[in-house]
Amino acid sequence: MTDQFKLAYPLLISLLFSAPVASEVSSFSVEPESWWAGMHNSQLQLLVYGDNIANKQIRLAQANGVKLIDVHQSSSDNHLFVDLDLANANPQMLTFAIYDNDKLVQHFDYPILAREPGSRDRQGFSNKDVIYLITPDRFVNGNPDNDNHPDMLEKVNRADKDGRHGGDIMGIRKSLPYLSELGVTQLWINPLLENNQQKYSYHGYSTTDFYNIDPRLGSNEEYKSLVEEAKQFGIGIIKDVIVNHMGSGHRWMADFPTSTWINGQQQWQQNPSDILYTSHRRTTVQDPYALKSDRAEFENGWFTDTMPDMNQHDQFMANYLIQNSIWWVEYAGLSGIREDTYSYADKTFLTRWSKAIMDEYPNFNIVGEEWTANPITVSYWQAGKQNADGYVSHTPSMMDFPLYEEMIKSLTDKEDWGSGLITLYEMLANDVIYAKPTDLVLFEGNHDTNRLYSLMGEDLATYKMAMTYVMTSNRIPQMFYGTEVLMTSPTKDRNDGLVRSDFPGGWPTDKANVFDQTNLTPDQLDALTFNKTLLNFRKNSLAIQQGTLSHYVPKDGVYVQARRYQKSDKNEDILIIYNKNENAVELDLNRFSEVLSQHTSGVELFSQHSYSLDKPLTLQEKGVIILSLSN
Amino acid sequence: MTDQFKLAYPLLISLLFSAPVASEVSSFSVEPESWWAGMHNSQLQLLVYGDNIANKQIRLAQANGVKLIDVHQSSSDNHLFVDLDLANANPQMLTFAIYDNDKLVQHFDYPILAREPGSRDRQGFSNKDVIYLITPDRFVNGNPDNDNHPDMLEKVNRADKDGRHGGDIMGIRKSLPYLSELGVTQLWINPLLENNQQKYSYHGYSTTDFYNIDPRLGSNEEYKSLVEEAKQFGIGIIKDVIVNHMGSGHRWMADFPTSTWINGQQQWQQNPSDILYTSHRRTTVQDPYALKSDRAEFENGWFTDTMPDMNQHDQFMANYLIQNSIWWVEYAGLSGIREDTYSYADKTFLTRWSKAIMDEYPNFNIVGEEWTANPITVSYWQAGKQNADGYVSHTPSMMDFPLYEEMIKSLTDKEDWGSGLITLYEMLANDVIYAKPTDLVLFEGNHDTNRLYSLMGEDLATYKMAMTYVMTSNRIPQMFYGTEVLMTSPTKDRNDGLVRSDFPGGWPTDKANVFDQTNLTPDQLDALTFNKTLLNFRKNSLAIQQGTLSHYVPKDGVYVQARRYQKSDKNEDILIIYNKNENAVELDLNRFSEVLSQHTSGVELFSQHSYSLDKPLTLQEKGVIILSLSN
Repeated sequence: MTDQFKLAYPLLISLLFSAPVASEVSSFSVEPESWWAGMHNSQLQLLVYGDNIANKQIRLAQANGVKLIDVHQSSSDNHLFVDLDLANANPQMLTFAIYDNDKLVQHFDYPILAREPGSRDRQGFSNKDVIYLITPDRFVNGNPDNDNHPDMLEKVNRADKDGRHGGDIMGIRKSLPYLSELGVTQLWINPLLENNQQKYSYHGYSTTDFYNIDPRLGSNEEYKSLVEEAKQFGIGIIKDVIVNHMGSGHRWMADFPTSTWINGQQQWQQNPSDILYTSHRRTTVQDPYALKSDRAEFENGWFTDTMPDMNQHDQFMANYLIQNSIWWVEYAGLSGIREDTYSYADKTFLTRWSKAIMDEYPNFNIVGEEWTANPITVSYWQAGKQNADGYVSHTPSMMDFPLYEEMIKSLTDKEDWGSGLITLYEMLANDVIYAKPTDLVLFEGNHDTNRLYSLMGEDLATYKMAMTYVMTSNRIPQMFYGTEVLMTSPTKDRNDGLVRSDFPGGWPTDKANVFDQTNLTPDQLDALTFNKTLLNFRKNSLAIQQGTLSHYVPKDGVYVQARRYQKSDKNEDILIIYNKNENAVELDLNRFSEVLSQHTSGVELFSQHSYSLDKPLTLQEKGVIILSLSN
Repeated sequence: MTDQFKLAYPLLISLLFSAPVASEVSSFSVEPESWWAGMHNSQLQLLVYGDNIANKQIRLAQANGVKLIDVHQSSSDNHLFVDLDLANANPQMLTFAIYDNDKLVQHFDYPILAREPGSRDRQGFSNKDVIYLITPDRFVNGNPDNDNHPDMLEKVNRADKDGRHGGDIMGIRKSLPYLSELGVTQLWINPLLENNQQKYSYHGYSTTDFYNIDPRLGSNEEYKSLVEEAKQFGIGIIKDVIVNHMGSGHRWMADFPTSTWINGQQQWQQNPSDILYTSHRRTTVQDPYALKSDRAEFENGWFTDTMPDMNQHDQFMANYLIQNSIWWVEYAGLSGIREDTYSYADKTFLTRWSKAIMDEYPNFNIVGEEWTANPITVSYWQAGKQNADGYVSHTPSMMDFPLYEEMIKSLTDKEDWGSGLITLYEMLANDVIYAKPTDLVLFEGNHDTNRLYSLMGEDLATYKMAMTYVMTSNRIPQMFYGTEVLMTSPTKDRNDGLVRSDFPGGWPTDKANVFDQTNLTPDQLDALTFNKTLLNFRKNSLAIQQGTLSHYVPKDGVYVQARRYQKSDKNEDILIIYNKNENAVELDLNRFSEVLSQHTSGVELFSQHSYSLDKPLTLQEKGVIILSLSN
């Protein structure tokens, strides 16, 4: 971010007095730009930035119940860290004074705001929800006027699969009625913060300003409005947070707040091409036999030369990141955080970070990304896990990559004694190693995976099995934008730009339009109806949201799962039957007496066909049926 | 076993009196045939077998400090269970009296023996050992006179890969000097108990007499002699125990001791072709979502129609099996048990069984076979594991199939970012889920796997890497007979008969002979020397037996492991370096400073070449080097 642009957003920072005896501090800014009274953690550390600020003194000029505990200088002349204690603070405007050798240079105001009622008790995303992931640049271009911005280096170019296409927050706001009708209840939106990089910035994972939305996507105020409007539709917003790395375009790269702000800092300062990259060897963090040097290479190495690795061992950096996460929850009114490249950050910091957030919002939710097919590796990071090395996490949820990968594989593998549905069945037995498997997020795809419909061989029946598996699992389900209308991609290797193609109808010139259903193929319309039915059924099914799961060993290409909710107020029994056979199959129900119990009939969700349970059940075709059982 | 044969072995059972007023019980036998005074568990349950015995009365006629607690009738007229309390018993000969309606029919003696000194404190196999697995019918034919036996149905036929070849206990006894020189310290011998089946009986897993060695392999006395002789060579004997199933040729199949002796008993009695086979779906035992019916199918189903599944839920059967295991340990003087098809038996019983044995012999060892590549599944069964469902085991060790399978795969896979040595490296990170990973048995092969040398593509360098990996691992290592001389097999699917080929030199007509090294190929001689060096080095290496393990992320086809023993009495540092490159590699040692510490040189085990550690190390060729570090 350029200083000019920064000055255009002086939201709550003002220069109140012009100092008569010494020059004002130029390029002045404070992060976070505001805070709140009555937070669980009453400590606050301000990062004050300004020309030569380190050689000046900061004092509280006007405050009520607020203590200035300490001011920390660092290796940078232009940064100071100011520690405040807000334990006894009411909402108020603080005034700080800056002195230069005891001469008053200037004052600045700092707002301590009142919290929204219920802020602490906010409910995070849960098993009641369906999460819908949006890559904001590629979803809907709601405001073509912000496609470019004078201060932002990369310009819009929809013809480039790796360029910026113009989607924005306004587009998401306009889509809320559609998303609500689809049955979605949470939006995870890929990062919205400023990414002022020269190129390849659309994905949002190269943060250049931790406190401002990228102007090509909207503004902080627009983001806040999105959250408020979404709430009216029963939809919560999950922020995509990256604590591991930032963008090389961040102003810090020219003036680090401390001497250990990023990993490999001095080395890079001496020679910007001398970068240690991460090994991506995530087991080094947990492996009882790994060497320190291998762990350091994994944790401290950079992702790419445009993504410097932040050093969370630096306590000023750690505080900055923790406060930043909490600031956005409180400011925007979020219902969750998705934390990127989870294990790549310092694990001691991750404990502190997750504890700080969950201490602040006990019912909140955080889901971490640990991209591996090994459930042992994933389970390490979940709150409540009793780890062999004693490591403690407070992050309630992790992305269930192991189950996702097994699902993709099993549904497309040939059915055989040891392959096909059986591997999906057997994978669930590994749930024993999770502290709470039902808190995991299971997905059908995300911005890093190839498109589900393509992975399912563009076979609609198999695609429906996958969607049903995710949506009826004993997990928190998550889908990726466009999956509901069969968006495609290549299936080999990574295809980021193509996977994150534009949502049909998101741009005025689009021929196909999901919102008004013009020019959709019959299969797309079929899939859309299927997903609406499935998600809206899930919305009201206690058996799926909270019920027990049981499942039978798959036989002859048929896999039966049962979900059961039994409380005094309501009983609900659901049978989900997957059939991978191309032809009709007669299913002898005698084997399933444990889950059928006293039920005598079942109504199928999609066809509304009623089945009698006292005779073999005919599965007419490849696919899945969902039976609600009754007497 | 036929009754005739049984009567030929009336080891300690004699008919002392001839009864004047009623006829003696014919076909009379008691199991176990003896017991010991001073056992930890003072309870003993005798299974008394005899014509119409159930309608007679059994009383203690002569005993000192022994109580007859109870006599249990069952559904069989020809079986009784007699409960004794030996808490206050000294070694003695008990005399029981059998009455028929208060008329004395006969007496029988029952010996309560004195235990060998130190019996309770015997040391089980441990990390100090190298286990050598022998398939006795295929190793050495030490006594051609017992190749056939008049009462045994299957005759010798060395030309049939699935037939009996004539190897025996005497052959093993004769091989002890060879095995000792090789560096072996424990022998796991495939089952030696009578398998009087019509055909395919050589493998020994169809027990037809739980208390007698198969006469074609030797006798109980010969087995005991083997143990005693092996002890002189510093070699212990591990018994292969099967509690899950028995042989269909067992006399019980004609007259079950109880009505629930085997699973599916009544069904089979009504129709011998009506057999429920096991599903082999082992996850059903641990899966929190599995249905009871699926678990029952796995646990209670038969292995084959010649291997009826014993019902350990039947408490008389459970007692029988537990006493049988302990009897053999005590009688023969064993140093361990290998338990076959571990998870297929009732898991509540397995807890009782393992606890009873370990309570009796606190320093003993048992290793269970759970054949799956998933460490989560294996870890469930190890003593000390905190299982999610609260299941408790007392079996100290399990076979490490997951690490074995990964080793085979990684050494032969192409080196790439995600394949090759890296998968072996990453597998070890899963050790966190085991209660005690160092107690696991890691093997290079067994009677069920294809031959190592063949799996390694008959590449001697890769074979040496595998052998070194097993022998220097932080596990209890186990090898299969003949691996030391590169025995081969096909590599696809199962090839039991070929995998268990005859050991060269075990039969007088053999052209090649390992014992006197005639007609061995240069590669065989090379391998033999290699293994002798490796095993005998291991015998004296505290770093390998007890030291810590650390390892570096493999890079460029090179994988470095370090073992370190540091105690006041001795320090030992060993570096094991695997090189999968076909060409010479220069290894920069700077990366390894954490494990090299103050050492300046290293002597290589096989070449005795001395390396300086202050410069890059040259790996001349594909293979492995073992460096003992010094200053």
